[in-house]
Amino acid sequence: MISEKILKISQEARNASRVLAKATSSMKNNALKRMAERIIRNTDRIISANKTDLEEAKNKGLKPSLIDRLTLTPERLQIAAAGIMEIISLPDPVGAITKMWRRPNGLVVGRMRIPIGVILIIYEARPNVTLDAAGLCVKSGNAVILRGGTEALNSNRAIAGELKKACAESDIPADAVQIVPIREREAVLELLKLEEYIDLVIPRGGESLIRSVVENSRIPVIKHYKGVCHIFVDANADLDMAVNICNNAKVQRPGVCNAMETLLVHRAIAKKFLPAMEKEYRKAGVKLRGCPETVAILPGINKATEDDWYAEYLDLILAVKVVKDMDEAIQHIEKYGSMHTESIITRDYKNAMRFVNEVNSSTVLINASTRFSDGFQLGLGAEIGISTSKIHAFGPMGLEELTTQKFIIYGDGQIRES
Amino acid sequence: MISEKILKISQEARNASRVLAKATSSMKNNALKRMAERIIRNTDRIISANKTDLEEAKNKGLKPSLIDRLTLTPERLQIAAAGIMEIISLPDPVGAITKMWRRPNGLVVGRMRIPIGVILIIYEARPNVTLDAAGLCVKSGNAVILRGGTEALNSNRAIAGELKKACAESDIPADAVQIVPIREREAVLELLKLEEYIDLVIPRGGESLIRSVVENSRIPVIKHYKGVCHIFVDANADLDMAVNICNNAKVQRPGVCNAMETLLVHRAIAKKFLPAMEKEYRKAGVKLRGCPETVAILPGINKATEDDWYAEYLDLILAVKVVKDMDEAIQHIEKYGSMHTESIITRDYKNAMRFVNEVNSSTVLINASTRFSDGFQLGLGAEIGISTSKIHAFGPMGLEELTTQKFIIYGDGQIRES
Repeated sequence: MISEKILKISQEARNASRVLAKATSSMKNNALKRMAERIIRNTDRIISANKTDLEEAKNKGLKPSLIDRLTLTPERLQIAAAGIMEIISLPDPVGAITKMWRRPNGLVVGRMRIPIGVILIIYEARPNVTLDAAGLCVKSGNAVILRGGTEALNSNRAIAGELKKACAESDIPADAVQIVPIREREAVLELLKLEEYIDLVIPRGGESLIRSVVENSRIPVIKHYKGVCHIFVDANADLDMAVNICNNAKVQRPGVCNAMETLLVHRAIAKKFLPAMEKEYRKAGVKLRGCPETVAILPGINKATEDDWYAEYLDLILAVKVVKDMDEAIQHIEKYGSMHTESIITRDYKNAMRFVNEVNSSTVLINASTRFSDGFQLGLGAEIGISTSKIHAFGPMGLEELTTQKFIIYGDGQIRES
Repeated sequence: MISEKILKISQEARNASRVLAKATSSMKNNALKRMAERIIRNTDRIISANKTDLEEAKNKGLKPSLIDRLTLTPERLQIAAAGIMEIISLPDPVGAITKMWRRPNGLVVGRMRIPIGVILIIYEARPNVTLDAAGLCVKSGNAVILRGGTEALNSNRAIAGELKKACAESDIPADAVQIVPIREREAVLELLKLEEYIDLVIPRGGESLIRSVVENSRIPVIKHYKGVCHIFVDANADLDMAVNICNNAKVQRPGVCNAMETLLVHRAIAKKFLPAMEKEYRKAGVKLRGCPETVAILPGINKATEDDWYAEYLDLILAVKVVKDMDEAIQHIEKYGSMHTESIITRDYKNAMRFVNEVNSSTVLINASTRFSDGFQLGLGAEIGISTSKIHAFGPMGLEELTTQKFIIYGDGQIRES
């Protein structure tokens, strides 16, 4: 059974999506500009709603790290509004004709980008995602149903209220931005059944949240469970470059999905590279967990268990394994990896090309930090997330990945003979 | 609980997919050539296995139309083998770098096509699909798990046996082609849980089969439920062209998903067009079901009910509605359509462009028959199916749609600063 409220917001979103699909870029950019302006102008009102959420959260005894993620400040709202202004400057993918060709019978066949339709985004506490996600969806012509953490419901309602007004002021239906008004988990399970009204689900958050969405959804889901990213330091890597990149990939921001979690080192270079690397990691406070060969070279560190090879630490911890050759490195990545991001450090042309060709993760790098696997860093602009699903989008997802393509065919009376 | 047999074929397919992903086009084309040769050379053996299926089917009292779909003849096998030879002549999408650009920090970023991995295809009685689907999957570098109708299990086993041998003779793992060896429906439910080993499910068949797959799958599903295709005859359509195209779209092959099921006629042309059209349809034996205005113009025909607007007849039956303008036509398509294929017949430039821009079905045509919505007709080559899912592929799916794209990044020591 689907509750009336859930059915209503989903149907409203579907109807709004049909109008929004026809909106011009100017209309959509105008709505985004007003969104940013309204968020700044009504900062006090939003922060007061956020205070209500924060009090409830403290009464419930939420962890300080979660309280921090939930907290809105004028600065955080300013950064989020600036993010919306950046989306305005990105090209509108809708209506682009990406290919066009003529058939022997004179039919002209092309592919035109169109919005996906209605997108359900499920995320955890951070209320600034509300603004980001709505901006990306509206710019790409999609209606959006936002299901943030229930701890943030008051904040999200206050933000979405401004976003809806910004739409209405720009001839875009206010219903294009919907907040799920029910705290109970049932609401999500109901939404996941409404494939008639919702075209795509993007869950963002912990692995258990995402697994539960995948198990219960009739609607296509684009997701990544986790990022167990690897760097393989090849036999003849430039030592300074390897140390520099491995340091950056682990230390620069350890809590994100494109940070390195396992370091693979070619046996021929291990005795030179590992002590130099450990020196840097010790300065940065990184704790190492090594295979027996690594421990033999670095006797002070802990032994890795089987679980360590699967681990996404999101912390200053790193698993280290010495491998006998590139085959073993690739096999290790295939077995334990998450198809997110892997890098090779090498001076060998053949090995570089082989790594790029044979490792089928969503982002594969040569001689660069895994931290570059990110929409802005790759030149795509703001991103809605990173996919390790093998269909539709694989890797960082920008505005283009929020569209699909229809076939358009211009004829002058053609009929099919056989 | 997953049975051992199902787990085994899925794991074998995953392992084979890793080897197959690295195969060259020559190796894959060689395997396809041997597939075609083996099917022809072993026609007797396959037809004898098919006889066993046919006897069981007759004993069970299967409908004659299903018996016909199940029946293999030397001619049908020859046509299927010729289809494989055509796939050889199509370009291999794997390894193509579709874009490449340089970032300000010197990183060179590109997108490279790679196989999806392991594809599960669920289909009904016709055993020639076994050959088609295996050919398309192997050419695009994907391992395939084939779940045909259980009535065809002996035939499918005989065919797949030859396909496996053809792979093995071409340095491609025989495990790249798997047949589900269990008749029970449970087998499918188990497969749909194995997202670790299977990347994509393509169900082909009746709506109830497809709905059951969508409800039970944790793996992404690409599908179309049905094709309720429309033609809109605009006020100033060329009358002869309209009659010719509408006749072709309904009559040329009424049992396929891109045949027209509902005809929408602008009020201003209805009195001239409908009698001329009915004359043609009467010759072809098409039965019309009209809205009240249509019935007033063509008094001999039956009245349409609400159900008729949703109907996919797959038969010489057509629903006909007079609309007051293009808005009403587009709204009708939005409400009752299946996002498959729609065409407008018009001489008006503005209306033609509006129809193409505003109707977001997977294929939208101007002045041409809906029957062109088909991989071969559009110049894509053999197709694995037609998608009305709004993600990954929308419309006819050729070899390219059986691939995804990874990001490849060539650096020379770049690290991320912020």
